[in-house]
Amino acid sequence: MALRQYKKNYDYSYTLGIFPTIELLEKSPQHVITVLLSPHSDKSEGVSYIKDLCKKNDIPFDYSTKALSRLSIADKTYAVGVFKKYEKKIRDNANHVVLVNPSDTGNMGTIIRTMLGFGISDLVLIRPCVDIFDPKTIRATMGAFFDINFDYFDAFKFYEEKYSNHVLYPFMLEGKKTLGSFKFEKPFSLIFGNEGAGLDNHFAKYDNTVKINHSKNIDSLNLSVAAALAMYETFQ
Amino acid sequence: MALRQYKKNYDYSYTLGIFPTIELLEKSPQHVITVLLSPHSDKSEGVSYIKDLCKKNDIPFDYSTKALSRLSIADKTYAVGVFKKYEKKIRDNANHVVLVNPSDTGNMGTIIRTMLGFGISDLVLIRPCVDIFDPKTIRATMGAFFDINFDYFDAFKFYEEKYSNHVLYPFMLEGKKTLGSFKFEKPFSLIFGNEGAGLDNHFAKYDNTVKINHSKNIDSLNLSVAAALAMYETFQ
Repeated sequence: MALRQYKKNYDYSYTLGIFPTIELLEKSPQHVITVLLSPHSDKSEGVSYIKDLCKKNDIPFDYSTKALSRLSIADKTYAVGVFKKYEKKIRDNANHVVLVNPSDTGNMGTIIRTMLGFGISDLVLIRPCVDIFDPKTIRATMGAFFDINFDYFDAFKFYEEKYSNHVLYPFMLEGKKTLGSFKFEKPFSLIFGNEGAGLDNHFAKYDNTVKINHSKNIDSLNLSVAAALAMYETFQ
Repeated sequence: MALRQYKKNYDYSYTLGIFPTIELLEKSPQHVITVLLSPHSDKSEGVSYIKDLCKKNDIPFDYSTKALSRLSIADKTYAVGVFKKYEKKIRDNANHVVLVNPSDTGNMGTIIRTMLGFGISDLVLIRPCVDIFDPKTIRATMGAFFDINFDYFDAFKFYEEKYSNHVLYPFMLEGKKTLGSFKFEKPFSLIFGNEGAGLDNHFAKYDNTVKINHSKNIDSLNLSVAAALAMYETFQ
């Protein structure tokens, strides 16, 4: 298997680093194809544990300096997991987070981690958007990636039609309601726009648009911050 | 002036991109040394505005493809501002955010932006920590950088001694108080540890350690998320 820098059209992806590779092996061993280790990693406890997990699950592992340096983001990567992409569809009656055209892997990863922290496991992505299987997204989730369900839609209206039982809360600078002053009805959909543009005016027609109070010294909050504040409120 | 990739020991730094360069010129023109523009940027309204600001403030600007590509993080950077590093000390009676050993420029930038959003302008950094003047930090603040005051200390105890009138709120997984269940007394210091390790046990002795409730499915929240939730509560 000749491994190359990740591309969106591959049917497999990578976990880069010891920590995400352990999470992969613990939570989704059935999807793992192989694991690559650095020959210089023999003193690492994390790598020993990875080898144990591989043996336990009958997963091949190999040593390769070249392949690791080709795939890595950071300077020193001791372990890479190679796994087959999978489906893990969102649930009808669960609460959802809906990201409309997210464009930053780091933000998406942080949001996924925060979702798990506040008891939300179902993520909806409206295209065009960053690739959820991008190794940079996976890395930014700090292991939370393998716990969430997700689904893509080509337009928001397709999501809305399919999940018509959900109460929609689009987060907008000009929202009618203020976060913290009302209770979320379940099952809810917390809807956030793109990092640069936010949600477009089409969303202003909904009853439950929400704004987050902040000073006039900034235009808007960072996407992952806004999403975290919203999820935190639903968790209280 | 031969410009090279930014290093911490330089006495100047860069704003990379049109947006941070405009913020620099609007908010701190007195610190600007020069501005570099891409020769391919003539149709950009942002670049026209930058040239107007340069003329108004008597700041030289020049065109250079080579220098831009040498300094840039992103593929296409149309403008770079070169500015002298400056001091802008924190205020005695203001509320502070204290970051102990932060190691990620992106997190620090997001926190600075969020501070401004929730009315906190004074940032304390405990060494070792990332460089606040790193162009990646500045970029991540989305322009908020030039509005904040900041100061470095070699150890937390030096900060504590100097600002003994502040009520200290260290954020820890085992905090005695729960965010949302009490009111912050002013002037306060919101104290956060390093991304990986959090605050060390030394901080457990303080009366007002604070935890943020989250599910057991993650070990901890992202640093910039935890800081945002805390600042949001103080702003309500």
